[in-house]
Amino acid sequence: MASENGCKWNKTALLVIDMQVVREHDPLGRDVELFRRHLYGDGKPKPTSKGSVGAELVDGLVIQEDDYKLVKTRFSAFFNTNLHSYLQGIGITNLVIIGVQTPNCIRQTVFDAVALDYERVTVIIDATAAATPDIHIANIIDMKNVGVVTPTLEEWCQSMEQ
Amino acid sequence: MASENGCKWNKTALLVIDMQVVREHDPLGRDVELFRRHLYGDGKPKPTSKGSVGAELVDGLVIQEDDYKLVKTRFSAFFNTNLHSYLQGIGITNLVIIGVQTPNCIRQTVFDAVALDYERVTVIIDATAAATPDIHIANIIDMKNVGVVTPTLEEWCQSMEQ
Amino acid sequence: MASENGCKWNKTALLVIDMQVVREHDPLGRDVELFRRHLYGDGKPKPTSKGSVGAELVDGLVIQEDDYKLVKTRFSAFFNTNLHSYLQGIGITNLVIIGVQTPNCIRQTVFDAVALDYERVTVIIDATAAATPDIHIANIIDMKNVGVVTPTLEEWCQSMEQ
Amino acid sequence: MASENGCKWNKTALLVIDMQVVREHDPLGRDVELFRRHLYGDGKPKPTSKGSVGAELVDGLVIQEDDYKLVKTRFSAFFNTNLHSYLQGIGITNLVIIGVQTPNCIRQTVFDAVALDYERVTVIIDATAAATPDIHIANIIDMKNVGVVTPTLEEWCQSMEQ
Repeated sequence: MASENGCKWNKTALLVIDMQVVREHDPLGRDVELFRRHLYGDGKPKPTSKGSVGAELVDGLVIQEDDYKLVKTRFSAFFNTNLHSYLQGIGITNLVIIGVQTPNCIRQTVFDAVALDYERVTVIIDATAAATPDIHIANIIDMKNVGVVTPTLEEWCQSMEQ
Repeated sequence: MASENGCKWNKTALLVIDMQVVREHDPLGRDVELFRRHLYGDGKPKPTSKGSVGAELVDGLVIQEDDYKLVKTRFSAFFNTNLHSYLQGIGITNLVIIGVQTPNCIRQTVFDAVALDYERVTVIIDATAAATPDIHIANIIDMKNVGVVTPTLEEWCQSMEQ
Repeated sequence: MASENGCKWNKTALLVIDMQVVREHDPLGRDVELFRRHLYGDGKPKPTSKGSVGAELVDGLVIQEDDYKLVKTRFSAFFNTNLHSYLQGIGITNLVIIGVQTPNCIRQTVFDAVALDYERVTVIIDATAAATPDIHIANIIDMKNVGVVTPTLEEWCQSMEQ
Repeated sequence: MASENGCKWNKTALLVIDMQVVREHDPLGRDVELFRRHLYGDGKPKPTSKGSVGAELVDGLVIQEDDYKLVKTRFSAFFNTNLHSYLQGIGITNLVIIGVQTPNCIRQTVFDAVALDYERVTVIIDATAAATPDIHIANIIDMKNVGVVTPTLEEWCQSMEQ
C-alpha cells in the first residue's frame, strides 16, 4: 500500500478503493448498512459477501506480499477500520486514491482523509468512475473545493517524473 | 434537538447543521482542518472562530433551554463528537437534517448517519443550500441514491400532519 | 457471537476476547502498537502475526459457521473495528465478556462497552485471567466500581437457568 | 495545553484530566453514561453537570488565554472528542497526564493514548489519585506494563532540568 521507491514518495500511500481496500460482508448480512441489508436475505444477491465474486479483487490487480489488505464494511475506508492508525504508523501523510465509485467509496474516503488532516489528498480522476459522467464530475468539483488535488493519470505520472 | 411532541416523532431528531450544531474553532486555529488553517493566522479572517460572528447562531434561531447544543470542528456533525452517543442515549433512530452547505456539512453528516445505520435519514431539500443550484442538486441526487429521503419543506410538513 | 436461543438471551452477545475476537497482526508489524513494534523486526518473535500460532484460536474453541469472527489490532475489541456497529445492527444491548488478559484486552473492551452505553456488561471472573491473581482481582474491583456485573462461571450459569 | 518553551518540550502536551480537560454534562443528563444516568434525575445530585461546581476547574487551576479547554463526556479524554486531532495538528507526540482518578479517567485516557501510538506517555504518579492507595498502585503497575513512564513529580521535574 505504501510506495517506498525513493525519498519523494515515502510519505505517500496509494489506496485502491473497493479493489485493494476490499469491502467484504458477512454472508448473513449482519454487518451490512441498514439501507441495503435486504439484499442479503435468503436467496438474495448478497453483492459483496465474503467469498463471493463481488468481494474478490478485480482481474489484473494482485496483492503483493508486502501490500496491506484492508477489509471495510462502509463506504469510507476509514470508517470503523484501522486504516488511519496503520498509515500513521508507517509515516504516511499523503494519499493517492483511485477505484470506484466516485460519489460513495471514493468521496467518503477522501472527505474523511481531509477531516483527518492528511497533508495532500489526490484523486486521479480517470482512475475513478461513477454510474454517469455527470455524477462523476459533480463529485470531482466538490472534492476540488475542499483542497483535493485532481489530476488525470497522465498528469499525475508526469508529476511523478519531475 | 429531539422532538417529543407525540408518539410518532419521539424517535426523530432535527439537526440544524452549522446553525444549532455549531462549528466553533480555537481563535489560534489549532483545531481547524489543515487545508484551511492558513485562514486563522495573525490578521486573517478566522471565519468561525469561537466568539466571532461566524460561530454565532443565525438570526431567528434560538437555542431553547432543553436543546442540546453541540460544537463540531469538521464537516460531519458526527466526526470526533458525542452526537451519536447522545442521540442513541435518548432513543433517536430517525434524523431530519437541514442547514448549510449541502456538499460539505450536510452531506458528510448525512453519509455518516447512513454509515451509522440510522433507520430513516431525511434532508429537507429547500432548507439546505450550496454555492450554486447545480452543486446542490447533484448532492441531493447522490444522497437519494443511498436511501436518504429528500422532501421539500412543504412535502415534509404534509407528511407530519398525516 | 450472538446467542439466540430464546427470548431472554436474544439481546446478549458473548465475546471471547483474544480467542474468538482475534488479534491478528501484519507479519511486517506495520499495524502493531508502537510500544511493542520492536517485537516484529527481522528474526523477532512476532507474537500474534497473521498465520502464526499466536493468532490462532485456542484448542477446543471452534468458530461455528454462523459465528462472526472479528480481527482487532489493539487491546479493546471496539478500537478501530466495526464491533459496535455489528452488535447494534443485530440488536445486542448486553455483553458477556471472557478471555485473556484481564488488565488489557478484557478491561479495555469492558470500559469501552461501558462508555458505549451497553445496558449490561458482564465479566465472568473465572473465565478471565491475568499474569498474577493480584492484578486480576484489582481489575475486577475497578470494573465492578463502574457497574460491571462480575459473577463466577457457576453463578452465571445459575442465573441463565432462572 | 502544549508546552512550547524550548526545543525539548515542543512535542509534549500536559493533560490535566478532569481539571483542564473538563467533564461537563447536560443538566438533563442526556449525555451521561447509562450506568450513572440515574444520578441526573429530578432532585438528584447531577455531579458534573454544566454550570455546577463539579464541572468547574479546581481552585488554583486557571485556564490561560492560549490553553485549549476540552469538554469530554466519558472517562477517556479521547473518547468522542477532537483531542487526538487537535494534538496531532500541533505536532504533539508525547503526553504527560495528571489529575483524577487513576482507575477511570486517567487510565482510560492513558490506554487510549497507547492505542493511538503516542511515542511517550507519562503519568506522574503523585499528581494522580484514586479512592484508595491500593487501587492507585494496582493501576500504576498495569500502566507500567504497557510501556507507560511513571515518575514521581520530583523525578519528572529533575528529568526536565537535564
